[in-house]
Amino acid sequence: MGELNTPHGTIATPVFMPVGSQATVKGLTPQHLRDIGIKMILANNYHLFLRPGTDIVQKMGGLHKFMDWDGAILTDSGGFQIFSLARLRDINSDGVKFRSHIDGTEHFITPELATQYQEALGADVIMAFDICPSHLDKEDKIREAMETTHKWAERCLKAHQRDDQALFGIVQGGLNPQWRLESARFLTALDFPGYAVGGLSLGEPKEATNQMLDVTLPALPENKARYLMGVGSPEDILSGVELGVDMFDCVLPTRIARNGALFSAGGRLNIRNARWKEECGPLDPDCNCYLCRHFSAAYLHHLFRAEELLAYTLATIHNLTFLNNFMVKVRKSISIGEFKTFKEDFLGHYQTTNETVRIAQKQKWLENWEQREGSGKE
Amino acid sequence: MGELNTPHGTIATPVFMPVGSQATVKGLTPQHLRDIGIKMILANNYHLFLRPGTDIVQKMGGLHKFMDWDGAILTDSGGFQIFSLARLRDINSDGVKFRSHIDGTEHFITPELATQYQEALGADVIMAFDICPSHLDKEDKIREAMETTHKWAERCLKAHQRDDQALFGIVQGGLNPQWRLESARFLTALDFPGYAVGGLSLGEPKEATNQMLDVTLPALPENKARYLMGVGSPEDILSGVELGVDMFDCVLPTRIARNGALFSAGGRLNIRNARWKEECGPLDPDCNCYLCRHFSAAYLHHLFRAEELLAYTLATIHNLTFLNNFMVKVRKSISIGEFKTFKEDFLGHYQTTNETVRIAQKQKWLENWEQREGSGKE
Repeated sequence: MGELNTPHGTIATPVFMPVGSQATVKGLTPQHLRDIGIKMILANNYHLFLRPGTDIVQKMGGLHKFMDWDGAILTDSGGFQIFSLARLRDINSDGVKFRSHIDGTEHFITPELATQYQEALGADVIMAFDICPSHLDKEDKIREAMETTHKWAERCLKAHQRDDQALFGIVQGGLNPQWRLESARFLTALDFPGYAVGGLSLGEPKEATNQMLDVTLPALPENKARYLMGVGSPEDILSGVELGVDMFDCVLPTRIARNGALFSAGGRLNIRNARWKEECGPLDPDCNCYLCRHFSAAYLHHLFRAEELLAYTLATIHNLTFLNNFMVKVRKSISIGEFKTFKEDFLGHYQTTNETVRIAQKQKWLENWEQREGSGKE
Repeated sequence: MGELNTPHGTIATPVFMPVGSQATVKGLTPQHLRDIGIKMILANNYHLFLRPGTDIVQKMGGLHKFMDWDGAILTDSGGFQIFSLARLRDINSDGVKFRSHIDGTEHFITPELATQYQEALGADVIMAFDICPSHLDKEDKIREAMETTHKWAERCLKAHQRDDQALFGIVQGGLNPQWRLESARFLTALDFPGYAVGGLSLGEPKEATNQMLDVTLPALPENKARYLMGVGSPEDILSGVELGVDMFDCVLPTRIARNGALFSAGGRLNIRNARWKEECGPLDPDCNCYLCRHFSAAYLHHLFRAEELLAYTLATIHNLTFLNNFMVKVRKSISIGEFKTFKEDFLGHYQTTNETVRIAQKQKWLENWEQREGSGKE
């Protein structure tokens, strides 16, 4: 896989897709995305079903027209969001009953409906409806979720009618390497045009993530797109690419931007830090983004301190530009057979998130799962 | 006055200046402003003195470079903001002691310092340091404020050194026509390159505002710029232009945009209203702004309901485009001697803010003045 052909352009892979769950990449106009060089984004079936409603988006001419985006779009089926955002979930073999995290209204979605709704949205790539358990759930529950996900994958394939959309299957199986392998084989036999690895990078130990990827990726066909869901830090993208991942998405680059954390070749920088207060130069002299070409780091620092909307826009432009340029370099290094050197060189300079932050992230994730009633955004 | 010459371009008048108190017009990049056709904006000496600090902006190369704006800038002196935002004000003939609305720190600003700080920011037009009392204050207090404002105007003129900046005087005098006339005459005698009318449109009865303008405008020289501070609704701009006002500024177009109120030829539209939920067409088919050219009204409605950042950006672009186009038409109508016809025609179609809204606005303003301890933004 060196490219992904879609009705909205050929996408060079490996590609990182920014997240626009609610039909907007937070804080950016579609023009900003084009200027950065983004070719493909992700939107969400769950969010758009609840608001504004799938019927509205369809009436507006589909998702591309609705959000004025003529590049490619992938929609997630909503499986993950129902388990991470919605309330009072009740799963049976037919589908999932849940309450909206927005207004508490009750809904029932089946694999057929999830497929039909995604067809109405009209993304270029759509996802099978899956069940995404926590790795903290009991073994039999994780096993059952995987088996149901498999049955639903067959139903999604059967329900899918639009031939201008690619439907991808999603591998589950918790943190059990045997089940992951079983899931990859089961889905591969169904002959999807692409395969995603779901249910990872959700707070489980890094070693477990890597172990699952080590088992799963080789079991997926090389000539089909392989998509690692929910991964978006440069270091994790490098690990994924090494194993053959073609597609990534994550809220991380845009979300941390809004918190003032900005990517640079040396690692993440916190623009709220007082060290930037009087910095006349750009945040990252090596960056060619709109922020770094036009504004001092001191200006962005000021905007964050003053809680100005422009802070979030400029920081998001920066992080997506960084990551887009990073993916260009990744692809280039692959094409000349120098990926390993590139990876080592990059990681030699890039300070990864420290352990304290990781522990805090994990703690937060555990709380979210344990509460099981919490709502959230994105 | 048909144009205002500044070191950053010749500005066709009458002009409306969008407000960017904290060195950013909320939600827009400077590129958005240029695309709309904005030539001159307003920033605020008070806000920038407190945050990031005048010294920082100066060190960054001045306000234009700091915010990447190569058009013209006017800075208000901070007089009004000290009386509307800051706390524990203590005025003596020398200056004003106040506490920051941000962190409570104590500061003392004199007319000389207000001028010096504005010179450091480097705007094209700067304002004299004035006292802006409430029209609800006692008569002798309003009289005294005016007299002090006059003395301070002389001191600002004397302190002002940069010959690439125009320093404007500010007429005060409360709602007393005699004092307004006296103030206009006093300042005119000082031979400023331009004059502002301050202390109006702050919740006083509309009739009183108009009466003050009727008296004041004719007393200011026609060949100098005449600037009505804090006015920005289309209907009030028309009244001002009729009396010879050349310059306007107001947070109104940008602030109401962020609340979902959008200008149209028929009056203000509330995009949050359910009537827009399924509207495939643009909000205003006659508008050539980025929002109306690229997105349905239903999309903007969705962004507001979902509280997405892009909502505020697109709505602000729309309102500033509307007002900028409106000013182009105003100037055109003046140039062909058809202003009165234009005004009547416009008002014949434009539904002005209804009485209920006006009363609510006035009530809010009264509360702000009565509390005198409240802090706010912009």
